[in-house]
Order: sequence, then structure tokens, then C-alpha cells
Amino acid sequence: MTVTAELTPAQARERFRGGLVAGTSGWCAGWTQVNLIAVPREYAWDVLLFAQRNPKPCPVLDVLEPGELAGALFDGDIRTDLPGYRVYADGELVERPADVREHWRDDLVAFLIGCSFTFENALLTEGVPVRHLEQGSTVPMYRTTRRCRSAGRMSGPLVVSMRPVPAALVDTAVSVTARYPDVHGSPVHVGDPAALGIDDLDRPDHGDPVRMTGDDVPVFWACGVTPQAAVLESRLPLAITHEPGHMLVTDARDAHYRI
Amino acid sequence: MTVTAELTPAQARERFRGGLVAGTSGWCAGWTQVNLIAVPREYAWDVLLFAQRNPKPCPVLDVLEPGELAGALFDGDIRTDLPGYRVYADGELVERPADVREHWRDDLVAFLIGCSFTFENALLTEGVPVRHLEQGSTVPMYRTTRRCRSAGRMSGPLVVSMRPVPAALVDTAVSVTARYPDVHGSPVHVGDPAALGIDDLDRPDHGDPVRMTGDDVPVFWACGVTPQAAVLESRLPLAITHEPGHMLVTDARDAHYRI
Repeated sequence: MTVTAELTPAQARERFRGGLVAGTSGWCAGWTQVNLIAVPREYAWDVLLFAQRNPKPCPVLDVLEPGELAGALFDGDIRTDLPGYRVYADGELVERPADVREHWRDDLVAFLIGCSFTFENALLTEGVPVRHLEQGSTVPMYRTTRRCRSAGRMSGPLVVSMRPVPAALVDTAVSVTARYPDVHGSPVHVGDPAALGIDDLDRPDHGDPVRMTGDDVPVFWACGVTPQAAVLESRLPLAITHEPGHMLVTDARDAHYRI
Repeated sequence: MTVTAELTPAQARERFRGGLVAGTSGWCAGWTQVNLIAVPREYAWDVLLFAQRNPKPCPVLDVLEPGELAGALFDGDIRTDLPGYRVYADGELVERPADVREHWRDDLVAFLIGCSFTFENALLTEGVPVRHLEQGSTVPMYRTTRRCRSAGRMSGPLVVSMRPVPAALVDTAVSVTARYPDVHGSPVHVGDPAALGIDDLDRPDHGDPVRMTGDDVPVFWACGVTPQAAVLESRLPLAITHEPGHMLVTDARDAHYRI
């Protein structure tokens, strides 16, 4: 275990609140990390309905209503306790601050969305190698040509993450992750990237390319970056999200989301 | 199989549209039945957030937006295609019509919520007897003293359904229903009714009492009547729901909700 793996979520959030900017992969082993997307109250219905209609990429674990800065999943301050944020205005990325106190508004509704880091620990436990962790890189993510079901103003493509899995272990990877429906669940596709409209696995839209080993098969899971893609495409006037890979570490246990 | 079990969902809806009032237990074997709750747009956020915060009793399978009378789960007309409705005004039950065309409004949002009929078929398949089906009665439902997480104006008690399960099969009942997280999933409680504040199993709040056999243990699942209880307690100015036990039969397969 690394030093950061042994931190409590409260200790990790304190470091980030103090200004540390770092990817959270491997931090606080066994504790659930989540995606953030905050939008003005006026658009919150569209976002929540979009999530309900697209539960694999957008599993909502909690919602902070206007004025709430913490909630059932964590104690602290949503504006400072993540290690990195993105601020979007009218669908354009305008800033990547370490703290969003000056961008926050009293009418923002914050959605906390499940993250595949939760099931990666389960894959490792079941003997399924996770290549990007072995290679010390961020999981590669791709925009696909598959469309989400839209909701009001929110529409966009399905975004997926890809993990190479040895052919003999694909069934294990499917059944292990199926037990985590609140954190993207089972894969959306196994095999041919072209079926999702992905031309080149070596050129992900987010994260790093990952090397395939031996008889690895590419396995694709729905990704929590999907609502960010919809916010961009839908040109919402304001949205505040986490920086990809720089998640909110919560006080919920990964095991809580296993069924 | 009974005659009604062999009907297609479209045939069943056509009969109900024609005026037939009947409980739908056992109808259209293998097809998913759902609860209905429709509220004015103004309260839809509170209902959807309440559902997100209480996913076991309120698994939202689809949402019809204002003006939509059908959707991805069924073809037809939500105002006529159920075999029975309830109309609530300011938290009071005011009518139990067979058709709600004259009560419907253009600003209503309709939530279609998963129903335990889906997992009852799975229990039978796995050899777990379902006593109320054997006894030809409606599953008993109870208001508990456990509170749901509230959302805006929506608050209320957890409502549960109870099925007696032979002691040796309780673990099977738990694992089978856990595979259906979108239709209430695993039980919320096994054993002592008093732990849920239920004084007398023979006096359910909805449905019929069920006889326990041999070494049956009472097993409690979250129930889709929960949002109806919240609508009552929260005194929303208007809500239209199904009549308990008189569900919307959809074109989705039960198997679709198994993971």
C-alpha cells in the first residue's frame, strides 16, 4: 500500500483543501470516489432526468441542493475539497482552478456521480489485472458515436473508459462489475472499438493510451465523463465539474455499492 | 398458465383501455409491470430527487415529460391504459376512476416505477414459494416507522411488502432479488416486524393478510407504494397514481432488469 492509499477520506480532502493538486487514483483504498457536476437550479431537472435515462454512464449517488456544500456522502466543502476542478461557460472550458469558491453560486445544484475506481479494486481482488494501474497511467476515455437518451436541454454522446482484459478473464470482469450497478456496472461493449465509432485506441479523448498485453481484449465501460460531454454539447451557461481523474473522495465504502 | 398470463402487453392494455378494471398480478407473464405517479411539473424535481434518494422503494424506470402520453416502455395512452387509477388532491384521495382523461393536465410529469411483480417470477423460478400467489390474494403492504430521506416538499415513511419465506430459502430469496436492483432489489428486513414498527402482520395497510406456513419467516421488501404515501403526507395539490395492484403492463421484459 502506498502512503496515499492509507489516508482516510477526511485526511485526503484536507490536503486538497490545502491546495494539493493530484490525481486520486489509488488514494484512500476501499473508499468511494465520485465525479462532480454542478449546474444552476434552472437546469438541474434536465441533468437529473438525463442521468435517470442514462444510468450506466450517469449513476447519481447523491445530490446537493442549492446552498448545501456537503451532504450524506462527505463532510467538508464541495468548493474546495476536490484536487482539481473545471469551469465551463456556454459549453466552453474557461478555467481549471484548484478551488471554486469564487465561481460557486447559491443556485448551484451539485450531482455526485459514481466512478469506476470503485470496481477497479474489485477487479484486482478477483485476479483481473488493471493495465493502466500497472502502467501508472490514467484510464483511457473515448467519445463514442453512440448517443445518450436526451433530456430537455441535455444531449450528448456516450463516453466510455477502456480496460484491456486477458481473453480468459473477460467473463470474470463482466460478472464482477455487474455487481456494482451504481458505479457503471457491467461493460457496454467487448471487443471491436469500431463498433463504438472509436478509430484509434492509442488516441483517447481523455486520459492516457494503455498498452495491451498478450491476448488482452479491449473492454469498454460507460464513463462518468459522459455528463460533462453533454454539458459541453448542450452549452449550459455554467457548469462546474471535477478535473477528470481528480475525484471527490467520500466517506462511503466501496463495498456499500456491491450487491 | 392462465389466459391472462398469455396475453401480450398490448392486448392487456387494450382491454384496460376498453374499461376492464382488474388487478394485474399474473397477467402477461415475463413482461414488466410498473407503478405510476404523476405530479405537476412544479413538483417533479422533488419527486425525482426523492426517488434518487430512496432508490429501493422508488426505482424510476422511465419518466414521461409534460405532454407525453407514452414512451420508451410502452405504446398507448397513460391516461387510459391502466386498469385503475387514484386521484389525490391536497393529500386526500378524491376519486378512483378507471380512466383519467378528464383529470389529466398538460403540465403533468409521469414517473414509472419498478414493481416487485418482476422479481416474484424469478423467486418462483428459483423454487421459492410466493404465498400470496398460492393463496390468490394481493401481497400485504405496511407503512413502517422508518422514514425515507426527504427531498424538498416530499417526505414520508418507507412502505414495505411482506412475503413469508421458508427459513431454509431466505438466503435464496435475498440473492435472487438482489439481482433486480431496479425493482426494489434485496429485502430491507428479515424477521421481526416490530423492528419496522409493524404491530400486526394480519392488518396490512394495503393488500390482504397472508397465511404463514410451517417455518416461514416474514421477509420485507421496499414497496413502490412508498411515493404514494409521500404524496399523501406532503399534500401535493394534485397527484394521479395507479390503483394499488392495478399496474401498467409495459413492453419491457422482466429479464431486462436482471443483472
